[in-house]
Amino acid sequence: MAATLGTLAALVHGDLRGDPTRVISGHAGIDGAGAGDITFAGDERWRAKLAASKAGAAVLASPVPGFAGAMILTAEPQLAFARIVQHLVAAAKPPAGVHPSAVVAAGAIIAADAHIGPLVSVGEGAEIGPGTVVHAGAVVGVGVRIGRDSVIHARVVLEHDVVLGERVTIHAGTVIGSDGFGYATDKQGRHVKVPQTGTVIIEDDVEIGSCVCVDRARFDATRIRRGTKIDNLVQIAHNVEVGEDCLLVALVGIAGSTKLGDRVVLGGHVGVGGHITIAAGAQVAAYSGITADLEGNARYLGLPAIPLADGLRVRVVQKRLPELFRRVSALERRFGAEEVP
Amino acid sequence: MAATLGTLAALVHGDLRGDPTRVISGHAGIDGAGAGDITFAGDERWRAKLAASKAGAAVLASPVPGFAGAMILTAEPQLAFARIVQHLVAAAKPPAGVHPSAVVAAGAIIAADAHIGPLVSVGEGAEIGPGTVVHAGAVVGVGVRIGRDSVIHARVVLEHDVVLGERVTIHAGTVIGSDGFGYATDKQGRHVKVPQTGTVIIEDDVEIGSCVCVDRARFDATRIRRGTKIDNLVQIAHNVEVGEDCLLVALVGIAGSTKLGDRVVLGGHVGVGGHITIAAGAQVAAYSGITADLEGNARYLGLPAIPLADGLRVRVVQKRLPELFRRVSALERRFGAEEVP
Amino acid sequence: MAATLGTLAALVHGDLRGDPTRVISGHAGIDGAGAGDITFAGDERWRAKLAASKAGAAVLASPVPGFAGAMILTAEPQLAFARIVQHLVAAAKPPAGVHPSAVVAAGAIIAADAHIGPLVSVGEGAEIGPGTVVHAGAVVGVGVRIGRDSVIHARVVLEHDVVLGERVTIHAGTVIGSDGFGYATDKQGRHVKVPQTGTVIIEDDVEIGSCVCVDRARFDATRIRRGTKIDNLVQIAHNVEVGEDCLLVALVGIAGSTKLGDRVVLGGHVGVGGHITIAAGAQVAAYSGITADLEGNARYLGLPAIPLADGLRVRVVQKRLPELFRRVSALERRFGAEEVP
Repeated sequence: MAATLGTLAALVHGDLRGDPTRVISGHAGIDGAGAGDITFAGDERWRAKLAASKAGAAVLASPVPGFAGAMILTAEPQLAFARIVQHLVAAAKPPAGVHPSAVVAAGAIIAADAHIGPLVSVGEGAEIGPGTVVHAGAVVGVGVRIGRDSVIHARVVLEHDVVLGERVTIHAGTVIGSDGFGYATDKQGRHVKVPQTGTVIIEDDVEIGSCVCVDRARFDATRIRRGTKIDNLVQIAHNVEVGEDCLLVALVGIAGSTKLGDRVVLGGHVGVGGHITIAAGAQVAAYSGITADLEGNARYLGLPAIPLADGLRVRVVQKRLPELFRRVSALERRFGAEEVP
Repeated sequence: MAATLGTLAALVHGDLRGDPTRVISGHAGIDGAGAGDITFAGDERWRAKLAASKAGAAVLASPVPGFAGAMILTAEPQLAFARIVQHLVAAAKPPAGVHPSAVVAAGAIIAADAHIGPLVSVGEGAEIGPGTVVHAGAVVGVGVRIGRDSVIHARVVLEHDVVLGERVTIHAGTVIGSDGFGYATDKQGRHVKVPQTGTVIIEDDVEIGSCVCVDRARFDATRIRRGTKIDNLVQIAHNVEVGEDCLLVALVGIAGSTKLGDRVVLGGHVGVGGHITIAAGAQVAAYSGITADLEGNARYLGLPAIPLADGLRVRVVQKRLPELFRRVSALERRFGAEEVP
Repeated sequence: MAATLGTLAALVHGDLRGDPTRVISGHAGIDGAGAGDITFAGDERWRAKLAASKAGAAVLASPVPGFAGAMILTAEPQLAFARIVQHLVAAAKPPAGVHPSAVVAAGAIIAADAHIGPLVSVGEGAEIGPGTVVHAGAVVGVGVRIGRDSVIHARVVLEHDVVLGERVTIHAGTVIGSDGFGYATDKQGRHVKVPQTGTVIIEDDVEIGSCVCVDRARFDATRIRRGTKIDNLVQIAHNVEVGEDCLLVALVGIAGSTKLGDRVVLGGHVGVGGHITIAAGAQVAAYSGITADLEGNARYLGLPAIPLADGLRVRVVQKRLPELFRRVSALERRFGAEEVP
């Protein structure tokens, strides 16, 4: 979907240096962009490459001398570029209606302009909102509710009774609402299943990647709040609550009943124990493990996670540990070691 | 499914303090329970909240003064409550029969009272036992055998010839019997596939979470023994054997040919190398890595995993490592450092 | 598919010690092999067990005295055995044609001898090459291209426009081409989606395990080069490039725009940060984290990863850290500690 530079600059409240009637039809990185494309340069490394770019326009924080294309100037070029590209790529939605190969239970309620793709299964009592798209092979369980303008990708499973808000996106292969991992163990060491009778609530504007698992609660609900974004292969256990506008990177695992405040960021492979509270704005570096509550608006690293600056200091010296052993042995050789208990 | 307190107390051999004819129709946590619900309090923190609860009944180890509801007393309240809730929620099974949209090969044998859901595919020679439920979109491969009263959730894939016992539950999106990761590398560094011609055997009463992968063996069988419970997103490589009544938490990975004894517990994100033996009753803390055999009936932590008490001691001091470097430098400054080799 | 020993020895250019007309119909491990089976012994541990084996033949680097069966001698017994077993198990492919329950868009192009299984969905404009097999329940998106002789297992999702080469194998449950995890964050802390408009290219002879996620690029393409093998539950982020003949073990996560050279090996659970380059031939031990570029043809271990020998030395001493603290305290007690800053 092409647009004039005037339209695109207005969209992001940017300052246009160039011909507002010029038409932009695509977008690309600095190296690949052509005369009809818009690109952006967020930092000095990329700005330095811009003079050699053939891009027709660029989104920038300030002018780059030598760049021949038009410029849209804005305080937040990365954010503005995201909005411009959203505008350019706004896809034609698949057509309204239920594909004849889909299996829809008699009592399900599907909005007239929703799209239900091939080989989708929709259970009894499910409700699918206006403008929502359910792609091929997805399974919408009994009693599931999905709000308007959401996108459920291929082969997603929404187990019975889970609730999704508006503008929610769930990528392929993800499972929402499987049983939490809960057992009581008898004297013989056998594990007796604790029924998981709660549900999962996914609020508005949440996006969840591929092959993610969000378990239903034991009682009540596992909850992912508005605006949170979850990467691929993440595990969210039963009764977890994730705040608003969090970012959870791939291969994160969060154990049962843990609570994340708003705007928490967890790097890749991070593990969080059960019944822990991470306060709003905490950010945890990749590959850390969290075994106790964390205060908010601070950064952490390590196993267990400690404040980032401390964690980095430990990392720097730990590789010199064999050297430290040798230095202590040398001191002991010179002065004689006491008996160490 | 409602039940009288008398029935529920008898079910768990509990000591009832209250009216045995009173009817309980639901269950909930202490905070959310109402007059028709039963709840439980497993420790002092929860017992302290019970007096303020509106629950009609509670399962307890000993009486809680001030609680107005009925009490079922038992030595193991958590276990008893699990059994009571199983009784209360015993779901109406989906109806017997094969959904018309399912694709069942001519030679497959499906018990008359099994349920085969919409858009399920069942391959040639597969056998599905009495009372077993296969939910929407699952794929049951050629020659697969599933015992009685098992539940295969939506979009599970059982690759050809895998064998599942009785009362097995497999959650959505899981894959049983994909090829093991085995290659022989030639002189040019190209990897030649080693055919994986074994299978997978899942014994009775095993429960496996969502998006789990259990690979088929190179020869013989990868095996998960009776009663073991596996959380979401776990990787079980070819020729692994997992003992009875084990618990494997989310994001665990077990490399090829490793053997776990009975009642082994692996915390979240734990990695186990190949060709390792972990003896019965070993428990490994989350985020540990196992690079050598572990003795049984002991707890471990660390990378590599060491006995838990030692591992905790290392964790406590490792964050003080920068301080230790400063202290050693101070000693050296005072006394002069030897040349360190 | 049975074969004579003469045929099998010729297949691997081996030196046959035995009757070339003898027919071998199966293969097995040393313990389980019978008179009609071939086995192999790659090292001394297995060679020692061979004399007691009932195997009809064995693939070996040199003769084993006391073994009663025929021997095929070759410098690389493991590789030769892989090729022999490939020959013996060469499966009858499923029949050519499209299963009547599959849903194929009018404009899709499917080779006459391809197999499209039950309940598969093929989108508009997709192209599926000669000899390729697509198993039950897979979803082939709009515009996807798959080369010849590839195998797409059950319930794989290939999102729109991804490209697969020849002889590619994708195991069940894997998702290729879901959106990369990219957002720009506004002043209110809300995450605005950066459209992911690139694609994924999987080159010839790549094999990818189950429940793997390979995200599409922001621009251009995420790329997995020829001959690389990927285990289960691996995360490949947007714009990553993986070289030829790499091995990525289960639960690896690679962040955006990182580049791996040829023949890189990453052990289980390894995490690689974004915008990192790992040069050809680098090998990283399981459970390591990579936070900076790595030089090629070397081995690494640790978090962050350092050269293997150094990493092993750190591992050995780190468990003695509490002891080192005690030794330093003892020195300080004797000589008095300076004030530590």
